[in-house]
Amino acid sequence: MMKISEGAVKSASIQQLKGLCDELRREIYETVSVCGGHLSSNLGAVELTVGLHRVFDFPKDKLVFDVGHQCYTHKLLSGRAERFHTLRREGGLSGFPKRSESEYDCYDTGHAGTALSACLGIAKARDLKGEDFRVIALVGDGSFQNGLIYEALNSLKILHTKVLIILNDNGMSISPTVGGLHEALERMKGEHSAEDVALFERFGLRYMGSVNGNDLGELLPALERAKEAMEEETVLLHVVTQKGHGYPFTEHAPMETHGLSPKTATKEYSSALGEELSRLARGNEKIVAVTAAMTDSLGLRGFFEEFPDRSFDVGICEEHASVLCAALASQGLKPYYAIYSTFLQRAFDEIIHDVCGQDLPVTFCIDRAGASGADGETHQGVFDLSYLSFIPNLTVAIPKNIAEFRKMLALSADFSHPLAIRYPREGTEGEACDVEIGKFEVLHSTLSDIVLFAAGERCLRLASSVREELVERFGMDLTIVNARFLKPLDRGLLASRGESLVVTLEDNVKIGGLGSAISDFYRNSGKTVLTFGYDDAFLPHGEVTSLMEKFGLGREKIVGEIVKYARR
Amino acid sequence: MMKISEGAVKSASIQQLKGLCDELRREIYETVSVCGGHLSSNLGAVELTVGLHRVFDFPKDKLVFDVGHQCYTHKLLSGRAERFHTLRREGGLSGFPKRSESEYDCYDTGHAGTALSACLGIAKARDLKGEDFRVIALVGDGSFQNGLIYEALNSLKILHTKVLIILNDNGMSISPTVGGLHEALERMKGEHSAEDVALFERFGLRYMGSVNGNDLGELLPALERAKEAMEEETVLLHVVTQKGHGYPFTEHAPMETHGLSPKTATKEYSSALGEELSRLARGNEKIVAVTAAMTDSLGLRGFFEEFPDRSFDVGICEEHASVLCAALASQGLKPYYAIYSTFLQRAFDEIIHDVCGQDLPVTFCIDRAGASGADGETHQGVFDLSYLSFIPNLTVAIPKNIAEFRKMLALSADFSHPLAIRYPREGTEGEACDVEIGKFEVLHSTLSDIVLFAAGERCLRLASSVREELVERFGMDLTIVNARFLKPLDRGLLASRGESLVVTLEDNVKIGGLGSAISDFYRNSGKTVLTFGYDDAFLPHGEVTSLMEKFGLGREKIVGEIVKYARR
Repeated sequence: MMKISEGAVKSASIQQLKGLCDELRREIYETVSVCGGHLSSNLGAVELTVGLHRVFDFPKDKLVFDVGHQCYTHKLLSGRAERFHTLRREGGLSGFPKRSESEYDCYDTGHAGTALSACLGIAKARDLKGEDFRVIALVGDGSFQNGLIYEALNSLKILHTKVLIILNDNGMSISPTVGGLHEALERMKGEHSAEDVALFERFGLRYMGSVNGNDLGELLPALERAKEAMEEETVLLHVVTQKGHGYPFTEHAPMETHGLSPKTATKEYSSALGEELSRLARGNEKIVAVTAAMTDSLGLRGFFEEFPDRSFDVGICEEHASVLCAALASQGLKPYYAIYSTFLQRAFDEIIHDVCGQDLPVTFCIDRAGASGADGETHQGVFDLSYLSFIPNLTVAIPKNIAEFRKMLALSADFSHPLAIRYPREGTEGEACDVEIGKFEVLHSTLSDIVLFAAGERCLRLASSVREELVERFGMDLTIVNARFLKPLDRGLLASRGESLVVTLEDNVKIGGLGSAISDFYRNSGKTVLTFGYDDAFLPHGEVTSLMEKFGLGREKIVGEIVKYARR
Repeated sequence: MMKISEGAVKSASIQQLKGLCDELRREIYETVSVCGGHLSSNLGAVELTVGLHRVFDFPKDKLVFDVGHQCYTHKLLSGRAERFHTLRREGGLSGFPKRSESEYDCYDTGHAGTALSACLGIAKARDLKGEDFRVIALVGDGSFQNGLIYEALNSLKILHTKVLIILNDNGMSISPTVGGLHEALERMKGEHSAEDVALFERFGLRYMGSVNGNDLGELLPALERAKEAMEEETVLLHVVTQKGHGYPFTEHAPMETHGLSPKTATKEYSSALGEELSRLARGNEKIVAVTAAMTDSLGLRGFFEEFPDRSFDVGICEEHASVLCAALASQGLKPYYAIYSTFLQRAFDEIIHDVCGQDLPVTFCIDRAGASGADGETHQGVFDLSYLSFIPNLTVAIPKNIAEFRKMLALSADFSHPLAIRYPREGTEGEACDVEIGKFEVLHSTLSDIVLFAAGERCLRLASSVREELVERFGMDLTIVNARFLKPLDRGLLASRGESLVVTLEDNVKIGGLGSAISDFYRNSGKTVLTFGYDDAFLPHGEVTSLMEKFGLGREKIVGEIVKYARR
């Protein structure tokens, strides 16, 4: 069996390379089965990545991945095969490119659409410094829907530099790719017309392709031709790959095998979103749902099937989706925009400018909020409470469990202002009473002089655990409040509390979140306020519980601080 | 003379319409001369707007402006002529479309690229509700560079609805339009090829044009044809207009007359940016400058002329510009990205994901920070301290005057991490000592028990004024500190202060800004902390001093609070 290494790729015969691809596929499949990760996109890109390593001279030449979840073969070929079994594990290899991990990773990614801008910057710096290497962007067709790619394409004629864009066209984002560009690409897999090619050439790049990216015999010469052509001008090589290639079940279920997580017994909030939204929509024809290429992961498959006319997956276009929601709401409809916490960062300006500036009743269903674990820095949803806290007209809700999430969704249907509901991936159904906007809930009431405000399921669980330890070890009890609205705060309840020690817990960075808001409320009150949330740092990949422990939400630390201040 | 009104437009002869256009132009010119505002873009769009009001049936049909600064003729024709002299004045007409102002304004705008997404949302809502009206987007060619437009274009084939896009092509953003799309549009003003047309048709819209948008004889029939064609499919009508049309000096200086402000005697920070950056760049070839279509307004014309190879205006592409900067920095260059505070909201995710996530030494020069006055809600730079405060790896500086801004720029050249410097448009040169990262400066030291931390020139001026009043009326003095870094805070200085009453002033919303940070620092210290900044609301257009007074930074209010707490 061929050893997986960069060197082997350079000298091997085509037949040997095919064997290597089989081996890489097996390695990826086996590792992802254990560690979780992105399966089908990586399986589809094995030959393409092998081909790039064969034809180009990394790390002198620079390979920039878009999104980056398809980088496993690249990692295996660049000196990281021995550590590959640590993929996505705490302290192990990241599931995304990381400059800190290898000189073969020249630019960190995680969100869609950045690769071409990044390549242009790297190439321009090269030109200015008089250096000589090649810069290659590897971009999926899903990312090509993103506005950032277009902005970069449009600036090719401004920047006057040369890069190679590999369009890895597997017809899929996480959901199937959609839209006008996709239709053109579909045609271009066969005989393409001058008009189709013009779509790219108008921007000043040379279109080459399409080639079968799972066939090394066809792919390698195409890469060589592209390498030659990029000496003269920026080239787009259209490579068609099969997502999940190599295994029947991944080929047939590329969406289901896009990302795998180790199995857990917990429920997911996304299922409840789908169920409740469909239920509400049956009785309210104003309800529409919008996603940016994440229909399944957000639990909306059922809604989309039941209400196809009221369902919009606009592709990886978070900004457009926000404005679309604002406009739908401006005409009296009731849009629900489901999205992951970190991806909503892309629509930050549109939340302010379009939705809240016009005070329109758009509901943001923000999934994967809080630490999200194995995907690492770019996917940790730990900023949303901070970036939503200061936007006028916005209400921000944080359910304590799935049952309360359902109540909040029910309440949202008649709410006539912008609303954000943020929740983690997994949770428990639990029980919940009716929810009123801006009202907290006292979950555990005592005569103690300590009150703890916690937001969301994880922090309420942590609160219970902190309380148990305080009771057991120190004979101290405390009152626990479900601080389910960051905005508006329950000022009535806050004002009524008589405790002298106030503690807050939130699954968000500490700066600018719930703790800041409650602390601001109690300013100059004479109360002691202790706030706990994540430190001012990017959270790496790791287990959620471990990240909480290490980055500011450790039980012992919290207990220790409470005991220290309670005894003063 | 013809009365300026919607009705008149419907019944007039072409000759009368031409007279009306002259009158509208005069009205716009005279009003902008007094009130300030956008001149050349409005002068260029007079005939086009008159034509739209002639051919379509507003407000039943919906007209969505992109950016919206070209809406003056529309306002004059929709019942607002009598109030037009109040344009951009406090309590008067907004310089942008406002739903709250007229039923003829169906969607609020201010930032670029939203119109097509908004139109698609409005049209889709119409379809779902079974209503019957036409939806028209009026988009400048500058906005067509923005990624949002592309995301919307790409979703035409997903959304299956019909709108009319008027591409108002005057070859300019605020700076001249650039890039591949612009080149195609330039060709299409003459005989255009099938390939040029394909650029649009691939997205599922019908290209019509180009027509001369300043010639009613050519324009009106074209609008009628487009109106008919949009019954069948989404149409893009390419209208070529002359920015500044009608007056020799605006025709010849469209950039200089894009936006006019009533003259003031003050200096602008942008001039200092241009001077210092050029000076630094002469000795440091790593320095490059990036803007998103705002070279002149940001003071970088001189830099661009002196260092053309190190200057990049990428068009209205705030996100792309950010990633480009990150990538340039990843290769050892030193990028300066100059941008307005509210427009940087568009690049929020890229600041986190690309720049700070990789801890790259990009310097953001954030102009028009704080209340920005007459442009209103969408242009008030009052969120930046809040949205920058919680981003790991970022340093945030706020100069006290232009001299200190120069010092900060000098310091930035050797700073190897992300840095944001935020400042208002106008200021005074003043004097400054050397600046050290994260160090405050005591400006006025007393033995008083009150210390006031203020950030930026406006708030330091307010601080002096507050102090004067306290001294004169109440015999109270206070210490004034120039809190020139939001992040990192000067923890050493903060810890050393013995005063029991702490006051903060910032030209930013109060939530999540400097006051929150300082208050967090002093939590549980026993000190009384009073924070002042803008209320949790969108600030309308008005004089900066008046906005400060009304929305949380009024001198009397601050003095009153200080007196109240100091006497406790």
